[in-house]
Amino acid sequence: MCGGIGSRFWPYSRTDRPKQFIDFLGTGRSLLQMSYDRILPIIPKENIFVVTNAVYADVVKEQLPDITDDRILLEPARRNTAPCIAWATYHIAAIDSEASIMFCPSDHLITREREFEQSIVKGFEFIENNDALLTLGIKPTRPETGYGYIQIGQPVNDNIMKVKTFTEKPNRELAQVFIDSGEFFWNSGIFLWSARAITDALRTHVPDLANVFDKGDGVFGTADERRFIEENFPGCMSISIDFAVMEKASNVYVECVTFGWSDLGTWSSLRDNSPKNSDGNVTQNCEVLSYNSSGNIFAIKGRKLVAVNGLKNYVVADSDDVLLICPLEEEQHIRQIVNDAKLRYGEKYL
Amino acid sequence: MCGGIGSRFWPYSRTDRPKQFIDFLGTGRSLLQMSYDRILPIIPKENIFVVTNAVYADVVKEQLPDITDDRILLEPARRNTAPCIAWATYHIAAIDSEASIMFCPSDHLITREREFEQSIVKGFEFIENNDALLTLGIKPTRPETGYGYIQIGQPVNDNIMKVKTFTEKPNRELAQVFIDSGEFFWNSGIFLWSARAITDALRTHVPDLANVFDKGDGVFGTADERRFIEENFPGCMSISIDFAVMEKASNVYVECVTFGWSDLGTWSSLRDNSPKNSDGNVTQNCEVLSYNSSGNIFAIKGRKLVAVNGLKNYVVADSDDVLLICPLEEEQHIRQIVNDAKLRYGEKYL
Repeated sequence: MCGGIGSRFWPYSRTDRPKQFIDFLGTGRSLLQMSYDRILPIIPKENIFVVTNAVYADVVKEQLPDITDDRILLEPARRNTAPCIAWATYHIAAIDSEASIMFCPSDHLITREREFEQSIVKGFEFIENNDALLTLGIKPTRPETGYGYIQIGQPVNDNIMKVKTFTEKPNRELAQVFIDSGEFFWNSGIFLWSARAITDALRTHVPDLANVFDKGDGVFGTADERRFIEENFPGCMSISIDFAVMEKASNVYVECVTFGWSDLGTWSSLRDNSPKNSDGNVTQNCEVLSYNSSGNIFAIKGRKLVAVNGLKNYVVADSDDVLLICPLEEEQHIRQIVNDAKLRYGEKYL
Repeated sequence: MCGGIGSRFWPYSRTDRPKQFIDFLGTGRSLLQMSYDRILPIIPKENIFVVTNAVYADVVKEQLPDITDDRILLEPARRNTAPCIAWATYHIAAIDSEASIMFCPSDHLITREREFEQSIVKGFEFIENNDALLTLGIKPTRPETGYGYIQIGQPVNDNIMKVKTFTEKPNRELAQVFIDSGEFFWNSGIFLWSARAITDALRTHVPDLANVFDKGDGVFGTADERRFIEENFPGCMSISIDFAVMEKASNVYVECVTFGWSDLGTWSSLRDNSPKNSDGNVTQNCEVLSYNSSGNIFAIKGRKLVAVNGLKNYVVADSDDVLLICPLEEEQHIRQIVNDAKLRYGEKYL
C-alpha cells in the first residue's frame, strides 16, 4: 500500500512525491523500495502487488521497474485502507481464490529484517491453518502516544494471541499503564489473512463496501476492471481497515513480534531512527554547520548548506518553494499549518 | 562607493551580488539604486561616479543604465575606502581640479530625503568656502555599539563643528555615556571636501598612498588610466579613510544632521528599519505563515512560503544553496560561520 500523501512531512514530502517515494533514511533507496527489498526474500516477485493512487503511477514504475503494470492497482480516489484492501483482495482472489495475502504499508522502517522474515513465515503458517485475521503487534519500547495499541487475550501459541481490544493513540499516562501491564502491543498495520477470511469479514462487517466489489464479479483481472474501478471506487466510503473490520471481527489475532519497527509517522520518530551527526543533529540531503544546536532534523530538497546557531529540537524542512521551521514538540501542529497554507494559497504549496 | 561584499548578510547577500545590489527594503529598487535616486536631485547626473569592484561592472551597468562607462571606476582589488577615495579624487581632479566632491556609501538607508538634500547643499557651501574635510554626523537615537562615534568640538556655525575625537564601536556603557553627553554623533561615512583638500590630506597623512596616484599624473581621464590602475591599485595598502586621514587631519569638521539614517549594517538594523507584518516579523521576498513567532527577519532568495512555529528574534536567510538560521542577538557570529564555511568548503558557498 503506497497511496498516502504524507502531509505530516510537509514540505519535504509533497503531494507530488510523498514520504514513501523519498529516500528518507539516506540509504539510496526510497521507503517504498526498502519495503519491496524487504519482502522480496519472502514473496515471489510475481506475487507482489502495489496499490497506490493513480497520480503516483509513474513514480511507482520508476522506483520499482520490476513490477509489471498488471500488478499495479491504481486507485482513482483516496479512500483509506478498507477500500484499498477490499479491491486488492478481490483482484487477487480472481487470480487465486485460495490465496494467502500479506498487506503492508510501504513507508515504515523495519530494522531486523531476518526476524521480520521469520515472523511473516510463521504468520502465514497460522492463517493457512486457521480462519483468522492476523495483525502484527510490536512489543512497545516506550509509552508512544502516536500509535494504536492492541491488547492481547488468550494465547494460541507462544507468540500468537487472540486480540482483546484496540486502542487508538492513548495519552501518555495510559500509554505508560499499557506498557507496564505487558498486555499491549503496537499496531503495525501489517496484516496477514486468506483472501476468503478477509472477504467474509468485509461482507459481515462492512456489507456496503463488500457489495461494491461483489457487483464486479467477473471483471477482476479482465480488461474491464479498470473502468469498473473508475466508476465504483470513488463511491466507496473512506474508512480504515482497523475501524471497518479489525475492531469488530471475532477472529482477530495478533502475532507478537520484536523486529525493530517504526511507522516513521513523525519527524521525531524519523529523527530517533536516523543516524546522528557528531553534533547530535540528523541531516537529510544537506551539509550542516551547527553551533549550539542539537536534536534537530534538517530535511532539505536539493543539496544545501545549512548554517545554524542556537536551535534545539526543531525540524527544518525545505523544498523548492516552502521552508518549514517548527519545534519537534509541536510537530502535530504541522497538519494545521498545511491546512492554513491550503486555505490561503490553494494547492500551490501542498 | 559600492565595492563591498556584504558578508554580514550572508547568505542572502552573496559575493556575486552583495547587499548594495539587492532590493533589501522591498521597494523595487536596490540600495545602490535608492542611493542614486537620492543624490540625483542634488548632483548633476553627469557628475555622478560609481567606484566598485571590477567583478560588479555588469550589475552596476544593469542597475544604473544612466551611468556611462566612463563614470564607472572599476577597482581591480578590494583595498578599503582610502585607495578607493584616492583614485576617484585623482580621476575627478583630472576633469576639474576645482571640483567639490561628496563621497557616499551606496548601501545605507536615509529616510528623510529632503533633510538630506538640505544638509548636503549646506555642506557643499561650507567646504567651498573653507579648507575643510567635512563628515556628516548623525544625531544618535540609541546607544548603538556597532557604529563609530564623532565627538564634536568648537562650533563653526549652528550645526557644523570642529571634530574633537573619533571612537570606533564603543561598548554599551560607553555608548550610553556618549549619548548622555550630547557631544557625540554617529559617523555616517558620508564625506564632503574639495579635490584639493583631500589630495593635500592624502599627501600629508598617507604619503605612500598618495605617491601611487601622483605617479599617475597625466594618465587620469585618458585611455591609459585603466592599465595604470590595474598595475598600481592592487599594491595600495588596504586602509579606511577614517583611519588614514580623518583621525589624523586637523581640518576635520562634522555637520550634525538629523535625517533618518541607518547603515543597514546588521540584520537587526535591517529588521528595525523595515516595515513589519502584522505578526511582528520582517519578510524579504517571501510569504510567511507564522505561529508563536515574532521579531524575526526572513530573507529568502527566490519567492518562497515560510511556515514557522515557535521562533523569536532570529534571522532566517535562504539562498539557492545555503540556509542560515541564527538568533539576531548572535548575528556577529555570522562572520565566523562564513569563515568556517570557507575553511570547510572553499569558495563554494560564499
